[in-house]
Amino acid sequence: MSERLIVIGGCAAGMSAASKARRLNPNLEVVVYERTGFVSYGSCGMPYYISGVIDDHNKLVVRTPEQFAERGIEVHLRHEAVEIDAENCRVGVKNLNNNEHKFDNYDKLLISTGGRATVLPNFSLGDLEGVFVLRALEDGIAVREYIRREQPQHAVIVGAGYIGLEMAESFHARGLKTTVVGRPPQVLKRFDPDMAKLVQQEAEDKGIKFSLGDEVQSIEGDSQGKVRQVISSKGIFKAGLVLLALGVKPNVSLAKAAGVTLGETGAIATDARMCTNLPGVFSAGDCAEARHLVTGRGAYIPLGTTANKQGRVAGANLGGGEAAFQGIVGTAITKVFDLFPAMTGLAEKDAQAAGYKATSTVIKAKSCAHYYPGCNRMHVKLIVEEGSGRLLGGQIVGDQGAGARINALAAALHTEMTVQELAELDLAYVPPVSPVWDPLLVAANVARKS
Amino acid sequence: MSERLIVIGGCAAGMSAASKARRLNPNLEVVVYERTGFVSYGSCGMPYYISGVIDDHNKLVVRTPEQFAERGIEVHLRHEAVEIDAENCRVGVKNLNNNEHKFDNYDKLLISTGGRATVLPNFSLGDLEGVFVLRALEDGIAVREYIRREQPQHAVIVGAGYIGLEMAESFHARGLKTTVVGRPPQVLKRFDPDMAKLVQQEAEDKGIKFSLGDEVQSIEGDSQGKVRQVISSKGIFKAGLVLLALGVKPNVSLAKAAGVTLGETGAIATDARMCTNLPGVFSAGDCAEARHLVTGRGAYIPLGTTANKQGRVAGANLGGGEAAFQGIVGTAITKVFDLFPAMTGLAEKDAQAAGYKATSTVIKAKSCAHYYPGCNRMHVKLIVEEGSGRLLGGQIVGDQGAGARINALAAALHTEMTVQELAELDLAYVPPVSPVWDPLLVAANVARKS
Repeated sequence: MSERLIVIGGCAAGMSAASKARRLNPNLEVVVYERTGFVSYGSCGMPYYISGVIDDHNKLVVRTPEQFAERGIEVHLRHEAVEIDAENCRVGVKNLNNNEHKFDNYDKLLISTGGRATVLPNFSLGDLEGVFVLRALEDGIAVREYIRREQPQHAVIVGAGYIGLEMAESFHARGLKTTVVGRPPQVLKRFDPDMAKLVQQEAEDKGIKFSLGDEVQSIEGDSQGKVRQVISSKGIFKAGLVLLALGVKPNVSLAKAAGVTLGETGAIATDARMCTNLPGVFSAGDCAEARHLVTGRGAYIPLGTTANKQGRVAGANLGGGEAAFQGIVGTAITKVFDLFPAMTGLAEKDAQAAGYKATSTVIKAKSCAHYYPGCNRMHVKLIVEEGSGRLLGGQIVGDQGAGARINALAAALHTEMTVQELAELDLAYVPPVSPVWDPLLVAANVARKS
Repeated sequence: MSERLIVIGGCAAGMSAASKARRLNPNLEVVVYERTGFVSYGSCGMPYYISGVIDDHNKLVVRTPEQFAERGIEVHLRHEAVEIDAENCRVGVKNLNNNEHKFDNYDKLLISTGGRATVLPNFSLGDLEGVFVLRALEDGIAVREYIRREQPQHAVIVGAGYIGLEMAESFHARGLKTTVVGRPPQVLKRFDPDMAKLVQQEAEDKGIKFSLGDEVQSIEGDSQGKVRQVISSKGIFKAGLVLLALGVKPNVSLAKAAGVTLGETGAIATDARMCTNLPGVFSAGDCAEARHLVTGRGAYIPLGTTANKQGRVAGANLGGGEAAFQGIVGTAITKVFDLFPAMTGLAEKDAQAAGYKATSTVIKAKSCAHYYPGCNRMHVKLIVEEGSGRLLGGQIVGDQGAGARINALAAALHTEMTVQELAELDLAYVPPVSPVWDPLLVAANVARKS
């Protein structure tokens, strides 16, 4: 008799796992329950769909339910898993189209319920028209449609993280006067303040307003129930559109209720095979924790790259194979107008908070040969453990080449390189893409002496 | 009494060493003898000076002799070292301005005589007007001036390596119909033929003609002694300008005559401190060998990056410090119109020739998210040792992001990563610069299964 795998949540992790498991074991019954109307889409593309850089939301979809059906994977859209009954190996599912409830039995279960957008206390989505989060593809479609229909002049983004800044650029491209209100005193809070300041400056230079170290008090609407303004502790901001970009929390309520153990970060704890504590129950993606290879501790840094890797590992094990996910080093990159802020490993503040004796080096360098036209400035920060010289993290803010260099630092972190070793790397050089002393080498040379 | 350091050759290695040594030991007398009229220039920028992307050759100069003088470094231009008398610790120098000869005594000596351009047998530079090599900055100036003055319509480049291809683009930008004649059956002979073919195709698409697997028989001039055509075993090519880009050989005649030991590649052998076999005599740059960290053997891959690193290490040791140059992994990149061919480590053919049981994987991937506009195709080739799965080399041909990714592979080679480990790297992702599965990860995932 064939085994039955149920996957709860059909975004990156869930569909990677489903595909991989089914490829390895063509006899496996694979059923996916997805709460929204889409599976398998590139949610990181939504800012570019909203800005108009991408014209059709269908382009973000990697594979449709029909295409999964051809691969033997049964996808149920708008079906919400409402209960995991681990004792009886079954999932309670509500069909959101007709509110019918049923139980479905599994041999193996993957919890890939993803993250949920943080919202403001005392505020419910739906209280006012024109207030959005950006999580499901429907959210992206709704935001773009709202801009088209209502033609708002002012946008307020609450939250100055990746999504907040990417959406600031996106709204700006749509002609909206955009203000970003954030609680921390800096943008991109995973970065150190000195590097984050460079990114904020770039956005300000392009016309984005910031109110940081600020807190939203209320969001107010007009008589028709459409959003009108945001009142914060520092001011009142006109808002024909509000985006809540307050970050993501692991969506673990189902799992928790079923007795799945959570890790120190509050996300689902798994072993390297992506198994939870419950027999036959796996987890992957934005609801799951990952081991940080620098600290050796659990980390919650929800990103599509990690979700895909975890999903594939879970799928391999669910399909009868053998795979392990070792962990992450926290590599991330974003695009903010003409800058590509990138980081990997620990920020200086995090290294210190984690108990490392950490120092840092920041250098400015050209991103290509000084004589080559269009050469830009690049800032590189290295965080280094005192004494050992071990690299703990790096941050780069510069043009497109900045982003790419972060990968060399990521590789260095995976292998616990010292800055001495980093300074000796044989990196590529041709005048249009680098100076003869690559900015990474310049930074490493300074760092090893300090 | 202060020590006296003589540096023979004032390009990348020589001037890096001079600067570093003098910074560490301000009492050191530092004297540089340079055969040409320039020191400390970015010779890799010459193709862009000739194309007109860079308007003034002085922009390629990093520091002038006057600026070095301010740092206590005495530079003699147009002074050719003609003899090293190691027994008496002196160098014979000819002043090329007046042909006067003198001896100058050293306590320490750095041989940074660089490489010399290979020329054709039975042909002397100077036999015909309009035939050039590209080595010293004067060569670049002469080529550009010749184009301005003579306005040739056709160029023939003999040699299809980095310089040959970069100059093909450069001549093309100047409006010259350009043919590249090369002896090997492929361009960029350090690359494997399959990857090199992609680069050739790009240049052909842009209008460059190739005659490969071909050999120049003669270069003929008109009645005024100006070059007119190139006759090869495969054809006759009109040529108002000929560039010999046949590669570089280590310039070791002085050193060899003085009893300096050469390595297996014919370049000067040094230890990690850049010391030769002669006491007090160091060597660095395009005349010196480097240890290849993949094979553990001597290699001759003359590049500005290595010259600078070796120069700095030599300078540190000459200045009383302590430094070591561990070696190279052979990372290189070039720009050929819209492609940035990049490689690191061993090509498949070289790995096999070196006795490795090597296999390879080639994948095609998008350089950014599939839905993002302007997304280009990228080819990644990984060369892997069978059994161990150890990465031996990588080649990437694609847009600018291709080049940057080679650095992650270089870091992987420095730490002897396996493709399994490579596949687990936490690489950066944002739709404008990468797909969620970075091409490197795709390649590593395929390679680890094969």
